[in-house]
Amino acid sequence: MGELLAVLFRTSVGSDLFDDRARLQGMLDFEAALARAEARAGLFPAAAAEAIARRCRTELFDMPDLAERTAQAGNPAIPTIAALTRLVSADDPAAARYVHWGATSQDAIDTGFVLQVRRFLELVQSDLERLSAGLAKVAEKHRTTLLVGRTWLQQAAPTSLGFKAAGYLDATERHVERLDEMRSRALVLQFGGAVGTLSALGPRALEVAQALADELHLPLPEISWHSHRDRIGELSAFLGLLLGTLGKVARDLSLLMQTEVAEAFEPAGEARGGSSTMPQKRNPVAAAAVLAAAARGPGLVATVLSAMVQEHERGLGGWHAEWETVPELCVLTLGALRHIAQTIEGLEVDAGRMRANLDAAAGQVFAEAAAMSLAARIGKPQAYEIVERASRTARESGKHLREALEEDATAAKQLSARDLDAIFEPANSLATAAAFVDRVLARRRRRLEAP
Amino acid sequence: MGELLAVLFRTSVGSDLFDDRARLQGMLDFEAALARAEARAGLFPAAAAEAIARRCRTELFDMPDLAERTAQAGNPAIPTIAALTRLVSADDPAAARYVHWGATSQDAIDTGFVLQVRRFLELVQSDLERLSAGLAKVAEKHRTTLLVGRTWLQQAAPTSLGFKAAGYLDATERHVERLDEMRSRALVLQFGGAVGTLSALGPRALEVAQALADELHLPLPEISWHSHRDRIGELSAFLGLLLGTLGKVARDLSLLMQTEVAEAFEPAGEARGGSSTMPQKRNPVAAAAVLAAAARGPGLVATVLSAMVQEHERGLGGWHAEWETVPELCVLTLGALRHIAQTIEGLEVDAGRMRANLDAAAGQVFAEAAAMSLAARIGKPQAYEIVERASRTARESGKHLREALEEDATAAKQLSARDLDAIFEPANSLATAAAFVDRVLARRRRRLEAP
Amino acid sequence: MGELLAVLFRTSVGSDLFDDRARLQGMLDFEAALARAEARAGLFPAAAAEAIARRCRTELFDMPDLAERTAQAGNPAIPTIAALTRLVSADDPAAARYVHWGATSQDAIDTGFVLQVRRFLELVQSDLERLSAGLAKVAEKHRTTLLVGRTWLQQAAPTSLGFKAAGYLDATERHVERLDEMRSRALVLQFGGAVGTLSALGPRALEVAQALADELHLPLPEISWHSHRDRIGELSAFLGLLLGTLGKVARDLSLLMQTEVAEAFEPAGEARGGSSTMPQKRNPVAAAAVLAAAARGPGLVATVLSAMVQEHERGLGGWHAEWETVPELCVLTLGALRHIAQTIEGLEVDAGRMRANLDAAAGQVFAEAAAMSLAARIGKPQAYEIVERASRTARESGKHLREALEEDATAAKQLSARDLDAIFEPANSLATAAAFVDRVLARRRRRLEAP
Amino acid sequence: MGELLAVLFRTSVGSDLFDDRARLQGMLDFEAALARAEARAGLFPAAAAEAIARRCRTELFDMPDLAERTAQAGNPAIPTIAALTRLVSADDPAAARYVHWGATSQDAIDTGFVLQVRRFLELVQSDLERLSAGLAKVAEKHRTTLLVGRTWLQQAAPTSLGFKAAGYLDATERHVERLDEMRSRALVLQFGGAVGTLSALGPRALEVAQALADELHLPLPEISWHSHRDRIGELSAFLGLLLGTLGKVARDLSLLMQTEVAEAFEPAGEARGGSSTMPQKRNPVAAAAVLAAAARGPGLVATVLSAMVQEHERGLGGWHAEWETVPELCVLTLGALRHIAQTIEGLEVDAGRMRANLDAAAGQVFAEAAAMSLAARIGKPQAYEIVERASRTARESGKHLREALEEDATAAKQLSARDLDAIFEPANSLATAAAFVDRVLARRRRRLEAP
Repeated sequence: MGELLAVLFRTSVGSDLFDDRARLQGMLDFEAALARAEARAGLFPAAAAEAIARRCRTELFDMPDLAERTAQAGNPAIPTIAALTRLVSADDPAAARYVHWGATSQDAIDTGFVLQVRRFLELVQSDLERLSAGLAKVAEKHRTTLLVGRTWLQQAAPTSLGFKAAGYLDATERHVERLDEMRSRALVLQFGGAVGTLSALGPRALEVAQALADELHLPLPEISWHSHRDRIGELSAFLGLLLGTLGKVARDLSLLMQTEVAEAFEPAGEARGGSSTMPQKRNPVAAAAVLAAAARGPGLVATVLSAMVQEHERGLGGWHAEWETVPELCVLTLGALRHIAQTIEGLEVDAGRMRANLDAAAGQVFAEAAAMSLAARIGKPQAYEIVERASRTARESGKHLREALEEDATAAKQLSARDLDAIFEPANSLATAAAFVDRVLARRRRRLEAP
Repeated sequence: MGELLAVLFRTSVGSDLFDDRARLQGMLDFEAALARAEARAGLFPAAAAEAIARRCRTELFDMPDLAERTAQAGNPAIPTIAALTRLVSADDPAAARYVHWGATSQDAIDTGFVLQVRRFLELVQSDLERLSAGLAKVAEKHRTTLLVGRTWLQQAAPTSLGFKAAGYLDATERHVERLDEMRSRALVLQFGGAVGTLSALGPRALEVAQALADELHLPLPEISWHSHRDRIGELSAFLGLLLGTLGKVARDLSLLMQTEVAEAFEPAGEARGGSSTMPQKRNPVAAAAVLAAAARGPGLVATVLSAMVQEHERGLGGWHAEWETVPELCVLTLGALRHIAQTIEGLEVDAGRMRANLDAAAGQVFAEAAAMSLAARIGKPQAYEIVERASRTARESGKHLREALEEDATAAKQLSARDLDAIFEPANSLATAAAFVDRVLARRRRRLEAP
Repeated sequence: MGELLAVLFRTSVGSDLFDDRARLQGMLDFEAALARAEARAGLFPAAAAEAIARRCRTELFDMPDLAERTAQAGNPAIPTIAALTRLVSADDPAAARYVHWGATSQDAIDTGFVLQVRRFLELVQSDLERLSAGLAKVAEKHRTTLLVGRTWLQQAAPTSLGFKAAGYLDATERHVERLDEMRSRALVLQFGGAVGTLSALGPRALEVAQALADELHLPLPEISWHSHRDRIGELSAFLGLLLGTLGKVARDLSLLMQTEVAEAFEPAGEARGGSSTMPQKRNPVAAAAVLAAAARGPGLVATVLSAMVQEHERGLGGWHAEWETVPELCVLTLGALRHIAQTIEGLEVDAGRMRANLDAAAGQVFAEAAAMSLAARIGKPQAYEIVERASRTARESGKHLREALEEDATAAKQLSARDLDAIFEPANSLATAAAFVDRVLARRRRRLEAP
Repeated sequence: MGELLAVLFRTSVGSDLFDDRARLQGMLDFEAALARAEARAGLFPAAAAEAIARRCRTELFDMPDLAERTAQAGNPAIPTIAALTRLVSADDPAAARYVHWGATSQDAIDTGFVLQVRRFLELVQSDLERLSAGLAKVAEKHRTTLLVGRTWLQQAAPTSLGFKAAGYLDATERHVERLDEMRSRALVLQFGGAVGTLSALGPRALEVAQALADELHLPLPEISWHSHRDRIGELSAFLGLLLGTLGKVARDLSLLMQTEVAEAFEPAGEARGGSSTMPQKRNPVAAAAVLAAAARGPGLVATVLSAMVQEHERGLGGWHAEWETVPELCVLTLGALRHIAQTIEGLEVDAGRMRANLDAAAGQVFAEAAAMSLAARIGKPQAYEIVERASRTARESGKHLREALEEDATAAKQLSARDLDAIFEPANSLATAAAFVDRVLARRRRRLEAP
């Protein structure tokens, strides 16, 4: 959709992974490898294969002409193969006889796309590691940095910034795990010929298929998968899930950056997040880009899932619906991942403000601690009633919750000053939080240390 | 997403309506009109406005640089306005003081987009008219061309090709109606300044707003709508609905084009619908492109609807999610509409095959007619039982349904040869079908003749 | 999906509009009206029609049995008609001959659903009016109640609560308009028989159709629309749009209810928004329910749009996909609408806190006003630079922006104390805001007063 | 959404897995296990735990009352816990003090849901195995049953029914693999208290957590996951992927069942697939139900992915959006899976018609074989040109392709009668197809035999 918004939404990494050239090169890589594999299997001379492979370079092709012919043919492989045949023919007429031997358009298009995805997933992997490392650092450093936990957008009870980061990290680690599992299903050869049976290659078909798989360093699947799109669907669903997590982090950051909260910030940069009208503004630009990507992901995933219902041996429309949708999902996700990885690395934390916001709550966020302390003495139902009443009294009168409790007859009888000190000491809330952080960090360490 | 697939999915019409240049020009058109409106309202000299307007030409702007700065700023208006200010300043420093006076980025982006949409909707309108005319022609010409009606993908009862076309036409006419209604809500000025209140323009604000609306020939809405996105949502929903209808037509055509059915075809063209493996193939290329668009539409519409939940006076992420999604939906829809309009205009009809398929049904598609004829004599329940049995007998023994009915004692007693002639005369099925066709055509005529 | 969550998500109004009984009654209403219409057209005696109509009462039907047979038949009309025939037969065997005469299952199912939708839209209409009235009240009452406008979740510039409400109201008024337009396309008779041509009714078909339409007080469309689902799609899209607006209001309220902001609240109620752990909590329950509905709407709308691609004269799967999806969307929307209407009516406003938050901004939200005031003297570019610097200085040193400007040489020279008074007087921001509010209210009044 | 359509869409298996009782029981199972775990950890006497556990039975609860209170509280756990406390109190007032000790509503709701999902996934697993077995049988039995392969809905080249089934089987096996991997992430304990840190349980928190996990036979995750919803998202995405495959099978079957194709059929059943108007119809009822489910899946998955963007320590709206969406997706998927498993088990195959359709193609589906045979002699480009021309000639003149080739000078010179025999012998197309089938079957066998 143009370059103007490309840097914002997709950062600058990997934006060429799925452009026209890359799409074309994917198909040409397939054709070159096919020729070599077939020559290796003895179907024709190696020299012919090399003559074909020599012409498998995008710069030799006329893109606008291919686009016109794609519209006629219904897919980009047909004109690409025709043009390749012409190119080879000009060079070595005999070799031209063997271009795309025994394959079908979808073999070239799908395998070409798998090759693009392989490079893409390497970037995703490395950015996931970068994000994981960044989050691990925040989790460790801020293991006990106090922060108000918020539920339903209301201040709830104390937690730590490290605990918050550990939650993100735990999800990130699951995405690393999923990527690993999904890759083995998504990155395989597509090669079946007209209706998937490789009938045009006669008795050497499987031998050629294996040689082709070897050429491309892709596993040979049990059977061709032209109209069984769960591999593509799973890739898309994985990206949708990852976007969900990235969007969650961005949402949290944008809430923390609110003027009224101001506890953490995207890294500042010159001219970053300015406004055309308001000189004082510092807008959460990365959060906006990531939230936009996260808003777009579900619809794109839904399209790919809908498109799985493909007809017989090759789909009509469903397959075509993938061609722009999956690449778009890929680059959006990579852009969002990069944004969040960078944001976490450069996260500006205002621990003072975090503590100030906690203190400004006038003890209300210790209501649970108070109730539990009291409950241990007089049972939960009554304890909650007392603390709820004290909390309301405190809010209405502007008092600190401790004061309101001290004024409540029952509470005052049950809770000593020392008890109250313990209740209102935020650090007491963090014992298990820190242990949770450690568990997440340990799991990450185990994964990194695994052979 | 590149040019390689652009002609296939978006045909060649209107593909530049939403490219980078168009997006930029939209914003610049806003800025030029704003300057003129403000000069007209006396805020600054007309000469300054003209100095600004003179620089509002996309070719003066460095797109890659704008893209980089957009990523910093979070929106493309900020760097555009900065670059425009520099350009004006070089020419007329005094005028540079007034660039983007009192407006906010979103005013430029939204209004710029509305201007793009206005041109786009003119093309949609004209292609809808073209489709409507094409369908009216088919409906008229084939008013009584017999065709098997199919329900649940099973042959059901006779209908006519004209009736089928009239169904598409009726839906098309509703889309014309919707477009008309939607336009008045979608095509309005966006102008509110920082938080929508136009506070920066002081007491002349509404006067400027009206002048700006006049400059751009856009209505001035009651209030700015920065974070109220139902206007954009309605545009998107309209396009999604239209895609649904276009997809339905494409699905039908692809089913009629099946080798086993072969009743109607997309217009042939040189190299159209060929295969890289199978020399005999004639693939439904337009249908594939349209079905792909129809598969993508719902996800894109869902994205826009999701993105409506925008925060306070300017959304974070939701607004940004629209920027590429809505244009994509626009060009996909226009491409699909063009494909179907062309297909209908050039539709190849094999009326002989339609009749042959009807005859090949060995009378089964007249089962309802037989049952109703019998029901008038002996009541529906018993009549259905008899015809169901006869139908099964006929299928199993390879007989014509008429024969099986003649062999059924009750049926034979109730139905004379003349009754049976009437039952199995397909033309008898079409009396009301033709009346329905006429109703639809008349409605279209009334619309076209309305003042 | 059960009753446990029904009150939360769907409030208690209209929850029975789309339950099993209502679905069954819709079909039975169709059958009764059909019998009467056909008797009126002279197809059979009026007494037979009355005998049929007498049995069209849901309490006579065995729901679990119908459910079992629906699974066999593939649609609920077939077993319903069979059961109705048995019931009529027991009562008046002659009349049983005429049950469902000349109609198809989809006629009963679609028309039955249209009848349910008609009642549903009356509730939507009345709740939209209630919401509109509630918002008009807030807009009027708080026309100049100061509030910080927020963009990108950052404090931006002053606005009024009335202006905010007027924005919601304006969108609500557009939904009223859309409802009105959509209704005429959505609420029409479905009646076409087997393949839509009414062939089973012979020459009296259109007469019967018109009589049936009259019986049900539904317009007779130009042609049957069994596989042209834009009418249902448009209904769904309308609901999706409305949910988008309701979600936006709920998002804003939930942000205003944040502990750190605390400017406006859902009406309190006993036990409302409590927590199982934290005695001090007051959760935004209505906002949560509405945001959940708004999150679910887009996916449901996408399903209906996807399902529009239906085959030939009756869809396979697409039609069936509507049966639970559209009712779900209906009741979710009505629930959300009711929640927001009630919330707006009982909205608790803390105008003091609004003002306090504005004041706490230490003048930063007047940065635009300052810049514009200065720009009028020294041009926009320089003015913005100065104010941006002053704003940063103020933030970093904890000063008020006014103070920082007074300390800036250029600003101090250009801006007198009176100028500064004007800049930092929030009421000055609201002149046009109030005019916008009035425009929206006037438009509403015009609509209500229209004949 | 009621019972009327439940059997059709969800078959009768597992329909109660996610009803109100099951939801309530899930929460009560959590509460009972929590009490026991806490007693085990020494927080209170075992007798109190047993008094609590004794009351954790759904039949003791008043569902309409819970529904009303859920609407007040915003979640169903709060009134459930309150009611449980009252029940326990009536029985053993001392024990009532310890109900829900230290936990939060979401702990009960999420863990309760995980317990429901665990039972659900057992059914999915067993139905996947059943489908896998059914497909393996078809693949084996019809390993070389000839069938026309179809691409773009056009007859393409011969394949076998066994190959088609092997393609479905291969995808099914991948789903088995995914289920296995996903389960370990989806089926874990949720237990974190107010903000996830288990602060209310003091130093014994992790000990209690482990004991609770043991009680419920669920793994204890590294950290609580209240607002990290990728676990739920992955479950949903898995179901969406599975629905995509099931929809693909249903689409294929519905196309094969077309009157004009008639090659394979859903198992017949009394009253199955009848019509209310057309006595001869045999509608693909299972296919319709499954295609409807496959049409609904993507939108539901998109909702869950959208809802992942949850705020801070507990989401507002996003979490709530899951409550009905995920169960709906679960039961729809199980219903569709059951439908397809049954359909495959009872699949009616008309091998004679398959062969007849192949023969009716008059050799056109051997065009690829002819072209490849010729290409081996004169190169691909020229060979394709010749066969394309012969194919067109044959179609236009009604000749067999073999005849048209015999009349072509070049082809006639290159291809002997024996060559032509080989080209037009369909069995020759199946050599590698059968090998592919074997590979898929072998993979399945390996999985079943793995320890």
